[in-house]
Amino acid sequence: MIAPDFAQLELGLDVPALPGMAEEDVLTPALIIDLDAFEDNLSRMRALCQTYGVRHRAHAKMHKSVDIARLQVERGNAVGLCCQKVSEAEVFVRAGFKDILISNEITDPVRIDRLARLARHARILVCVDDLANVAALARAARCQDVTIEVLVELDVGAGRCGVKTANGAMALAQAVASSPGLRFSGLQAYHGPAQHFRSFADRRAAIDQAIGKVRAILDDLAGLGLSCDIVGGAGTGTAALEAASGVYNELQSGSYAFLDASYATIEDENGRPSAMFRHALFLLSSVMSTAAEGRAICDAGLKSQTLESGLPKVWMRDFQVLGCNDEHLILADPQNQLKLNDKLRLIPGHCDPTCNLHDWYVCVRNGVVETLWPVSARGKSL
Amino acid sequence: MIAPDFAQLELGLDVPALPGMAEEDVLTPALIIDLDAFEDNLSRMRALCQTYGVRHRAHAKMHKSVDIARLQVERGNAVGLCCQKVSEAEVFVRAGFKDILISNEITDPVRIDRLARLARHARILVCVDDLANVAALARAARCQDVTIEVLVELDVGAGRCGVKTANGAMALAQAVASSPGLRFSGLQAYHGPAQHFRSFADRRAAIDQAIGKVRAILDDLAGLGLSCDIVGGAGTGTAALEAASGVYNELQSGSYAFLDASYATIEDENGRPSAMFRHALFLLSSVMSTAAEGRAICDAGLKSQTLESGLPKVWMRDFQVLGCNDEHLILADPQNQLKLNDKLRLIPGHCDPTCNLHDWYVCVRNGVVETLWPVSARGKSL
Repeated sequence: MIAPDFAQLELGLDVPALPGMAEEDVLTPALIIDLDAFEDNLSRMRALCQTYGVRHRAHAKMHKSVDIARLQVERGNAVGLCCQKVSEAEVFVRAGFKDILISNEITDPVRIDRLARLARHARILVCVDDLANVAALARAARCQDVTIEVLVELDVGAGRCGVKTANGAMALAQAVASSPGLRFSGLQAYHGPAQHFRSFADRRAAIDQAIGKVRAILDDLAGLGLSCDIVGGAGTGTAALEAASGVYNELQSGSYAFLDASYATIEDENGRPSAMFRHALFLLSSVMSTAAEGRAICDAGLKSQTLESGLPKVWMRDFQVLGCNDEHLILADPQNQLKLNDKLRLIPGHCDPTCNLHDWYVCVRNGVVETLWPVSARGKSL
Repeated sequence: MIAPDFAQLELGLDVPALPGMAEEDVLTPALIIDLDAFEDNLSRMRALCQTYGVRHRAHAKMHKSVDIARLQVERGNAVGLCCQKVSEAEVFVRAGFKDILISNEITDPVRIDRLARLARHARILVCVDDLANVAALARAARCQDVTIEVLVELDVGAGRCGVKTANGAMALAQAVASSPGLRFSGLQAYHGPAQHFRSFADRRAAIDQAIGKVRAILDDLAGLGLSCDIVGGAGTGTAALEAASGVYNELQSGSYAFLDASYATIEDENGRPSAMFRHALFLLSSVMSTAAEGRAICDAGLKSQTLESGLPKVWMRDFQVLGCNDEHLILADPQNQLKLNDKLRLIPGHCDPTCNLHDWYVCVRNGVVETLWPVSARGKSL
């Protein structure tokens, strides 16, 4: 097979929009950021941190965008970023960020080497829950002549990584503190599942337990002469609780900047929908088939959103989402109101993996595209 | 912020492997193709088509890979490709493919224009289920001075796009046949849900119904003097049924080349697991935390696989998958057999959207990396 002459092909570039365009002209499926709501979310998180005198280290795994991270630092007053993978951190170091916590264990030798190389260019922190991993990190740091800062990860209820016992935490902290090339910088104590508990009382109970556990370990560490610069944790669902704890000093929220359908279901103290943050992320989709009575088919399927936290919701219009296949979203439209090429904003079920499917954010204000931001670390999972 | 000097940064490229490397040294998470199983799957589909005298038009939306599509045409004897999006088809036309069906409705004016431009370089077919869309396609074809071939899509039970009635199908076929710039080339009659019905009897009942519907419409069309070059449909779950129908003449299977955990649950006529195709796609993952008793955490989360068809399975080893978060897979390991950095092959729940998350396929034979193939149309959802 011989490829055609591409000078003649005039293939469209896969940019879903151009600045100045009306939102209704954006090619779909495309991620839309409502800039007013997004900026408001940054302000709200900054205010929360100011109120309680804690720092915010914004989680970049959610948006994977250099432009958004920059706004989180500059306008949102974030002290730095969290990443979840070395390849993700590389993108942000390359863009000039100087303070990055990999809020995860890095155990593979190739990745440890890459982590140590990053520490030549930025303050790099990483989590540990294994003594052999501490030794491997220390060797790599000495080999690259850098210091890697280390947080000991506690399992405070997430049932994932991290040590459960005070003895385990102390052994790791001592190992880090006594390893040339490493610096013991504190604790990572993130309670993932609690973020999504619908009831405020359940979230408070889970985080109270986490706070108690962290406080006890801080006391134990102080007894060993080890202090913690960073006690980090908290996502969007519980940030106000850790902020008010007097124990945590760095919040690591990510989703707060966008919100999603899953986070929108959590309730405040009075059992009402929590209004701490606003919906700023949407998946714009077009109707592509109205052939069936009572049903409309849109062009946003599993290649542009993920379903593990449930189906998306339709924004500001009363259509029920019936299902989602590889390339199609199926809506109930009992009165056949929707017409071919009508556009709908969807609220994705879960923002993090949905953003990771896209190459661009289309940033909109008052119905007009203001700018486009690349999803800079899209696909960086190594 | 000023970006660091990247000549000094020596950032690793995000290639998960190099040819000649052992599989156990591949960086994770990474998609692995078992080349022996993959080639065997191509042969099996070729044999199925030869047995029944039908053509295979391989569905490229599944793998999105130019290299795989080429092997499907050259070794698997596929007559052409299916794509699901215009941007996807552009990638394959650019690579030299000459016969592409977009097995979907294209209704947006910008996309219709791009579709017509593609028809300058390749045989392009598209589906319709709307009369106004027929008119729009015809205008674009005349504007670009090309012929776009059109299949009328029937809803044969999928409950998605397509017309349900013979009258609807005939009106569309006549509109296409009488539109300069368009050619009426046949029917699209894909029964998506039936692919995944576990019981053979249920699959047969669904496809028998589809066959009956298609046969009646073919008769009606013949009465109008309209013949169908293509009667297309069939996925991996039902391909043998449409192949044997005497009515369908083009199969559109995609997943047969890789298989996934969802397709592995379907049964043959005797209620045993269908062994028509072999597992050829795996997600290689590494153990990154063993801090908890009875549990191991792997590095493959929702950024490297999707869950809408269920959790992945562990290949050839007896570990139960307990859950999957953004960046972590949680395994039960009651005897604490797994060690840090152990590698496991996972069988993804659903291959299509999982492949779309990755940039590379790592192709392995006898435990050694033979080559890497890019996921050429990754993210092409426009």
